[in-house]
Amino acid sequence: MEDVIAHYYFRPDERTTPEEAAQAIAEEETTGTWTALTTRQDYVRRLDGIVESVEKSGRGYLTLIRYPAEIFEPGNIPQYLSVVAGNLFGLGRLEAVRLTDVEFPESLARFNGPNFGTEGVRHLLGTRNRPHVGTIIKPKVGLTPADTAHVAYEAASGGVDFIKDDETLTNQSFCPMNERVEAVMARLDEAKDETGRQVLYAVNVSDRADRIVERAEEALERGANTLMVDVLTCGYAALQALAEEPGISVPIHVHRTMHAAMTRNPEHGIAMRPIARLVRMAGGDQLHTGTVSGKMGHNAEELLLDNRALTDPWYGFRPVFPVASGGLHPGKVHAELATLGTEIVLQAGGGIHGHPDGTAAGARAMRQAVDAFLEGISASEYAKDHVELYRALELWGTS
Amino acid sequence: MEDVIAHYYFRPDERTTPEEAAQAIAEEETTGTWTALTTRQDYVRRLDGIVESVEKSGRGYLTLIRYPAEIFEPGNIPQYLSVVAGNLFGLGRLEAVRLTDVEFPESLARFNGPNFGTEGVRHLLGTRNRPHVGTIIKPKVGLTPADTAHVAYEAASGGVDFIKDDETLTNQSFCPMNERVEAVMARLDEAKDETGRQVLYAVNVSDRADRIVERAEEALERGANTLMVDVLTCGYAALQALAEEPGISVPIHVHRTMHAAMTRNPEHGIAMRPIARLVRMAGGDQLHTGTVSGKMGHNAEELLLDNRALTDPWYGFRPVFPVASGGLHPGKVHAELATLGTEIVLQAGGGIHGHPDGTAAGARAMRQAVDAFLEGISASEYAKDHVELYRALELWGTS
Repeated sequence: MEDVIAHYYFRPDERTTPEEAAQAIAEEETTGTWTALTTRQDYVRRLDGIVESVEKSGRGYLTLIRYPAEIFEPGNIPQYLSVVAGNLFGLGRLEAVRLTDVEFPESLARFNGPNFGTEGVRHLLGTRNRPHVGTIIKPKVGLTPADTAHVAYEAASGGVDFIKDDETLTNQSFCPMNERVEAVMARLDEAKDETGRQVLYAVNVSDRADRIVERAEEALERGANTLMVDVLTCGYAALQALAEEPGISVPIHVHRTMHAAMTRNPEHGIAMRPIARLVRMAGGDQLHTGTVSGKMGHNAEELLLDNRALTDPWYGFRPVFPVASGGLHPGKVHAELATLGTEIVLQAGGGIHGHPDGTAAGARAMRQAVDAFLEGISASEYAKDHVELYRALELWGTS
Repeated sequence: MEDVIAHYYFRPDERTTPEEAAQAIAEEETTGTWTALTTRQDYVRRLDGIVESVEKSGRGYLTLIRYPAEIFEPGNIPQYLSVVAGNLFGLGRLEAVRLTDVEFPESLARFNGPNFGTEGVRHLLGTRNRPHVGTIIKPKVGLTPADTAHVAYEAASGGVDFIKDDETLTNQSFCPMNERVEAVMARLDEAKDETGRQVLYAVNVSDRADRIVERAEEALERGANTLMVDVLTCGYAALQALAEEPGISVPIHVHRTMHAAMTRNPEHGIAMRPIARLVRMAGGDQLHTGTVSGKMGHNAEELLLDNRALTDPWYGFRPVFPVASGGLHPGKVHAELATLGTEIVLQAGGGIHGHPDGTAAGARAMRQAVDAFLEGISASEYAKDHVELYRALELWGTS
């Protein structure tokens, strides 16, 4: 493949045939507009978008559109988006249109990619053949650095592999980043002395992309062992800048807050799959893709395809660790792992810190639910001699 | 006002009352989650989001939610978005939810703002009491630097005030940016010698935000007198970086490509108004907000509110020049100006370069249509002794 193939779902308006609608996308994003141009030169023809196929799909149609590679500026992700996900969303002749996937040729996929990926993250923690269990410090905002660190300590003592800030916590005055990192890392060292286990703590360094490396370096100087970035609010450049910076040698955890403004309507906007591909190219090591059973539940088939965009072989990029997050608790672990497999990070925030016996018990309950699954035992059965899991299921059930 | 007030439209699912739904947003974006937390400290309460009001609106409800200012990190736009436009879009208890507006207190509005704004741009060109007429070089991509410059020369000769690259043209090999800028500026100098009129050319410097200043400086070294950025694909940081850079003293034209992935569904996503406010804070001098009659036509009432977010007095920020663009031609000028007023940039791409007698004639026709409006004469009447306008109306009509 030498060109870019974009996959769209669309519904044309009543005046427009499916073929005309697909052609309107191909023209709008390449060399055409709504009227004939006197300024068009013959040599421009090679850059025309080409409608490769149009077929019926549900209430609308699927089309594959070929955009010549030459239209793209290699390495410029904002420019890629301006073509495959640009003005077409506003075209009046389409009632709805959704970018469902995008294929890039090798010439446009020359990016850093993940420095760690699933295997690299596993190597840091020495894990194999089991999902990671992560937690988000809760409440989302408000805790002091010392209280944040205490929650992190409890979670680490209870057995999580991974701890992260929430997506809105960056460097506010109630919990300055530098103090927070120092406090958390000190308590994680304490937990490591006690348990022998290393835990990753992803510091949310989300900031304007032109300054994020500076912020990340501050966090690293204070001992941070993982970074986190809200990729859609900060822009892909923020992730790319972190991944490409030679001085940054820790994994990057990628949160996708704001995505549902674009991804949620199944007929319009941008699906998660193209976002996942861009995150992988730009260098994310872990990415939130969703849960099958949580508070923001997803279609399982779609979610598996999204995760495959992270993990299937692709131009030598390392596989990205998919993260299931949002409303998870021990009673939902079985459903998640049965559907998503064990090469995944299961993240629970409320599902750990809401445990009736506190954070450490909540972390234990999550790990017990995972162990139950791996041993082929139901959570309810396993709970009979695992009190933390028992208490969790008592509160939240196994739905 | 000390806090942030976010305005949302939403439709709850059947299990959820409107009050519960609004509360779920307020909690998700501040200190709460789906379950009670053992880690919540009493002192966190001051950071709770507060539902100020809920009222019926169409098929759904409008709610105002107060987010304490302390939750925000001053100056960090990605962080602002993570609160007001973050996870809430995915909440399972809402069928749809749309951020329709947002009010920031002064403490969170300390940004550079536009360096030029409407008055600054007018000052450069010496215009008063009339709309600016702009054009987008077409075809969108493919022309060589010399052919691009020729189109620019023709447009300038015909009377446009403003010329811009299209949103997907950055620095591709078929038209490298540096060569393009040199070629265009040379031909614009030629036009200036002939007509005495200065024309602005906005070079699309869209690139990753951590490198965009470098690219802008290259363009400026080659004589660029205006810059352009695709703010949603590049991120607000790209705009902010340009506006704050002391060495950059030209206006910044802001394109919003990709916006309709988020803005188009009237019940879900992010309205244009909050985007307009962020662009004004970050320093855009001109911003596309839409047309009432073009290929991506908008609701006139909404559009006027969007433009007011750019132009109403607001913490001393200069007014931003609103840009009506997309499918405009001389026959539509009257409708646009009658609705949007004359403090606006009317941009025509195809509506100029598709003129049967070429670009210069197309530019003249646009200017004639504007003159007709300002003189209170219909376009058809004015066309009787203005041949370029006559020929345009003959082709495209006056719809």
